[in-house]
Amino acid sequence: MQNNEIIKAARALRILSACAVEKAQSGHPGMPLGFADVFTVLAAKYLKFNPQDPRWFGRDRLVLSAGHGSMLLYAFYYLSRFKGFDIEQIKNFRRLGSSTPGHPEYDAISPVETTTGPLGQGFANSVGMAIAGKKYLEKTDAANYKIYCIVGDGCLMEGISYEAASIAGHLKLNNLIVLFDSNSITIDGPTSLAISENQLFKFQGLGWSTLCIDGHNLEEIDDALNWAQKSERPVFIECKTTIGYGAGDKAASCKSHGAPLGKKDLDELKKFLNWEHEDFVIPEDILDIWRSFAKNKAYEEWQAKFKKLTKDQIEYLKPIKVHPQTIDQIKKLETTDGEATRVSSSKILEIIAQNEPKAILGSADLSTSVGVYNKYCKIISKDDFDGNFIHYGIRENAMAGIMNGLAIEGFFPIGGTFLVFSDYMKPGMRLASLMKLGVIYIMTHDSIGVGQDGPTHQPVEHLTALRSVPGLCDFRPSDRLETIGAFEHALSNLAQPYLMALSRQNIKSTVLTKEQEVKKGAYCIIKNHHPDITIFSNGSELPIASEVCKLLEADNFKVNLISLVSFNLFLQQDRGYIQEIIGTNEIKVAIEAASSYPWHRFIGRDGLFFGIDTFGLSGAYEDLYKHFGLTPQNIYKKIKYESRNQRTWKDRKTSA
Amino acid sequence: MQNNEIIKAARALRILSACAVEKAQSGHPGMPLGFADVFTVLAAKYLKFNPQDPRWFGRDRLVLSAGHGSMLLYAFYYLSRFKGFDIEQIKNFRRLGSSTPGHPEYDAISPVETTTGPLGQGFANSVGMAIAGKKYLEKTDAANYKIYCIVGDGCLMEGISYEAASIAGHLKLNNLIVLFDSNSITIDGPTSLAISENQLFKFQGLGWSTLCIDGHNLEEIDDALNWAQKSERPVFIECKTTIGYGAGDKAASCKSHGAPLGKKDLDELKKFLNWEHEDFVIPEDILDIWRSFAKNKAYEEWQAKFKKLTKDQIEYLKPIKVHPQTIDQIKKLETTDGEATRVSSSKILEIIAQNEPKAILGSADLSTSVGVYNKYCKIISKDDFDGNFIHYGIRENAMAGIMNGLAIEGFFPIGGTFLVFSDYMKPGMRLASLMKLGVIYIMTHDSIGVGQDGPTHQPVEHLTALRSVPGLCDFRPSDRLETIGAFEHALSNLAQPYLMALSRQNIKSTVLTKEQEVKKGAYCIIKNHHPDITIFSNGSELPIASEVCKLLEADNFKVNLISLVSFNLFLQQDRGYIQEIIGTNEIKVAIEAASSYPWHRFIGRDGLFFGIDTFGLSGAYEDLYKHFGLTPQNIYKKIKYESRNQRTWKDRKTSA
Repeated sequence: MQNNEIIKAARALRILSACAVEKAQSGHPGMPLGFADVFTVLAAKYLKFNPQDPRWFGRDRLVLSAGHGSMLLYAFYYLSRFKGFDIEQIKNFRRLGSSTPGHPEYDAISPVETTTGPLGQGFANSVGMAIAGKKYLEKTDAANYKIYCIVGDGCLMEGISYEAASIAGHLKLNNLIVLFDSNSITIDGPTSLAISENQLFKFQGLGWSTLCIDGHNLEEIDDALNWAQKSERPVFIECKTTIGYGAGDKAASCKSHGAPLGKKDLDELKKFLNWEHEDFVIPEDILDIWRSFAKNKAYEEWQAKFKKLTKDQIEYLKPIKVHPQTIDQIKKLETTDGEATRVSSSKILEIIAQNEPKAILGSADLSTSVGVYNKYCKIISKDDFDGNFIHYGIRENAMAGIMNGLAIEGFFPIGGTFLVFSDYMKPGMRLASLMKLGVIYIMTHDSIGVGQDGPTHQPVEHLTALRSVPGLCDFRPSDRLETIGAFEHALSNLAQPYLMALSRQNIKSTVLTKEQEVKKGAYCIIKNHHPDITIFSNGSELPIASEVCKLLEADNFKVNLISLVSFNLFLQQDRGYIQEIIGTNEIKVAIEAASSYPWHRFIGRDGLFFGIDTFGLSGAYEDLYKHFGLTPQNIYKKIKYESRNQRTWKDRKTSA
Repeated sequence: MQNNEIIKAARALRILSACAVEKAQSGHPGMPLGFADVFTVLAAKYLKFNPQDPRWFGRDRLVLSAGHGSMLLYAFYYLSRFKGFDIEQIKNFRRLGSSTPGHPEYDAISPVETTTGPLGQGFANSVGMAIAGKKYLEKTDAANYKIYCIVGDGCLMEGISYEAASIAGHLKLNNLIVLFDSNSITIDGPTSLAISENQLFKFQGLGWSTLCIDGHNLEEIDDALNWAQKSERPVFIECKTTIGYGAGDKAASCKSHGAPLGKKDLDELKKFLNWEHEDFVIPEDILDIWRSFAKNKAYEEWQAKFKKLTKDQIEYLKPIKVHPQTIDQIKKLETTDGEATRVSSSKILEIIAQNEPKAILGSADLSTSVGVYNKYCKIISKDDFDGNFIHYGIRENAMAGIMNGLAIEGFFPIGGTFLVFSDYMKPGMRLASLMKLGVIYIMTHDSIGVGQDGPTHQPVEHLTALRSVPGLCDFRPSDRLETIGAFEHALSNLAQPYLMALSRQNIKSTVLTKEQEVKKGAYCIIKNHHPDITIFSNGSELPIASEVCKLLEADNFKVNLISLVSFNLFLQQDRGYIQEIIGTNEIKVAIEAASSYPWHRFIGRDGLFFGIDTFGLSGAYEDLYKHFGLTPQNIYKKIKYESRNQRTWKDRKTSA
């Protein structure tokens, strides 16, 4: 590859990016303009890719953590002739329905490796992909690929990047090469407004190999990438670049970051690059150069290698699909009473760890508390990636991002922490939901049942928050049987993330639960034909609700009790079933030791809610349940008062 | 102070901590046992405190970021005779109603400086307190105090600590001394399971002064603390300690981290410490030693200094109270139409920045987009703390934590980012709510109105999530007048945090909004006596709702239109008002470009909701509103269909 060809190729990348942003009148031209030289050298000489087979297993992974620079990717895809990225898509950049949205969006068939935009997430995903790569390498050198991750100043300021980098250094992930587009500019201006640290120094401290180069010097870029191939540690290359390179007054200015260049500076850019073609017209000779970058020889070599793999190896490289036998074995678990659902979950996780080689369990330093570590777990370490358990450390944010990377690579990550710390994981959980990744969050200590640790450790609003994340499937089972039902559903449908909200405290089972009904999201535990009262509950409050039913029944009320174990699944049922469960009687009650918002969807404006819309307190959990009125006697009395009140239930419509 | 006195004093700290955890049968003895030596030297020789005046302005701030070690604080408070911490409270450790909850809980009068527990938060709070200290120092050397922050391995693994440390280094906060309880143990076992980095190396890279000492060697501790007083940078002292020091088999083991020692190892501890007193009985001579640690001389000197301060200086040291003139000036802002509410907010923030010297504006690198930076802002830098604006960098998590520290110190922080990135800030926002801190979150780009940036940047579930945080007051105003009303309320009641959810896109005002009504949370925009239909809406969807009303009115429907601008405030109104607003008619509709959950509290199970329960898309926002059916015509048609349907509205009860 001649440098003059690379220079030509980089020009096309720049022009296409700038023109697309200009046409869209929206987007981020500065990053592609600044990073085009590094990227073109990478694509030309190192990056293993084949546009005919975008998800080729042996490809190098290309993660744009600085997702706002999406036009860099799209221009690359177009120039290299990836399917789905013709010139019309480039012209339709950021338009509804295009394959070129504002930030790169993952789906399982496009060349986009992961959805990025929220800064730092791509970095964490890359660490997950690198762990996955190491695990595949244990099985076959057909997994001898690299993960290239492009980050900007913003990515590195985010704490998640630090967390992920710390893990990468700890695990010596030498298949990971992070390219830092160091242009010293962020949206607000020069980075010196907010940061003074020496990134190289920091990354060295984290156990990385580091290097700083001129990101516009083709030899330096080539040498650095060459050097990076053989590192024994993860590699961090700081590439000093000029944001908006060549774009007149906007070069080296935050003005080129997130807005079209405008005609004047776009013209300056074209002049600077000696570009005389029409917008969106790339001369054939440059297209030929780009098309020559595909690594056809590596592809063929890989195919030859792949043909020699054993059936078992090939099976392992495929995306996880849980074995039916695993689910059968889970279903055969004996029922039990008086068990915390975190313990029920731990029994199931044992079966998964024993039987599913692609399940990767892990925890943010709460392995035992949340029950994700068991005798079938083997710790993944820098010296041995054959294991199935990751000690994420106290890094929930990175855990979520790394889990996403693992899931994208076909593994089945199961990560655990306390439900209250979902706050630290939310950015990654949201992206898992957006990408429809099959991950399971084991989130225990799911209410004031936490007890003495107090309000900082007691979730209140978290169930509401997570239930409202589109595509995140919530479960809050009440006993071992429902926990089995929840896992059974999740393991059979690994095309979305799952939340398992589990109790710390022991729960006396109602003995009325039904494993098979869990997949409907809600079902009748106690059913009457014309009930006076319908009570909705779940999790650790279901037995309380059951006691309330008994008290009301003793007063000759007819009561239906519903286990609403998954809001997400229930709302996906057909109208008839939802109607049947909700019923037509007036008196609706909900009981959950958490905030009320989601329940009004079922109990309506006038339903009685027993739960917690304030923060919790530190104390024995039994005392807390009393303090917050979550006892059968108290709830029973209030329901009775309301139902026998002179005003009819219907007239009560003032309690919203 | 003799070392033998310090040794005696430390013993009492250890025994009291271990006994309290033992009695509670819950808690974390390992940390106090390991850190008692460092802490006792600190308390004896450096920490400026006066138990008679726990919130003395001139005191050194003592932040236990490793909040699980709370008994260390409580034992100190008891031994030093702080009010509210008698021996009964120590015996009632972790019991409901005690002043000694599981994790330290802030209130404005207790010696606890901040609520900690979620790891890393205290570190970020300390950085905020240090910035506050620097600002006070600009006014008077009566603020010549230090912030001591005690962190553990877990705190440092959390990304928020890195973010906060990076800012502290950038601002050269030499009034901040971080003491790292480096015991190389976390809950799961040795830290080597999850981390290999060199913390000193990293902190040096971040611009800190660093030192590593033996945390059980009194001379080394003393020398280090002495050295730390004169640093020109923030100080990081790694104190190598033994967790559970002296507790038999549990010493140096994760078994001492989070569970009582048990009789055997508690006895071992007593033997090890030559402790022969009854539990909870501290001999007078040791109490006398502890009582001698109070810095009475420094207190008196400070009082003398304080007496010489000018009225202005004294005023400045007091907690923020917004001047009535500022609010008046905001109220006098002209109304306008067709403005994005982020722009309305920016006009108000100009007035605040100009008039309120204790307001500290800032942004996570979106200063202009979110409208928090204006001509009255002066950037706070390492060389000049006189300013009122912090460039937090792309560090939302730390921003929230630093804002909390500023608020605790009596400043009025206003921090801005996109609403979708509240995900990164949530841990700190939750603690602000728990501590009832007066902070304002300016969160713009509050819906699919974001447009082209796509689903990663479009909040959907975030309003639901934040509305359900206890004590966080939400506002989503629809025009400049309502934005004024929202700020007016917030500025008059700075005893809780506020969310301002603001639009990116311009909004055509309904012209019917009322500034004075905003404080009720909801009010009638259009009111009929016996309406057929009630429509609830807010923010950028209010004008759409208003158009819907016009279309329905043209069909002779009587329609009430409610601006539900704050769920939190509306739910605090009296029953009568809530009833009046909701009304008794059957047909309830809500329109908000966000998830549905919170609205059912008002529209009930059978209400019609127009919003978004899926992720957004990348495209022009006008196209997105069409795509998601959020146009007046579409909504009008659906309401009409439902209301004229053969089935009566009431029979429709199947649409939950």
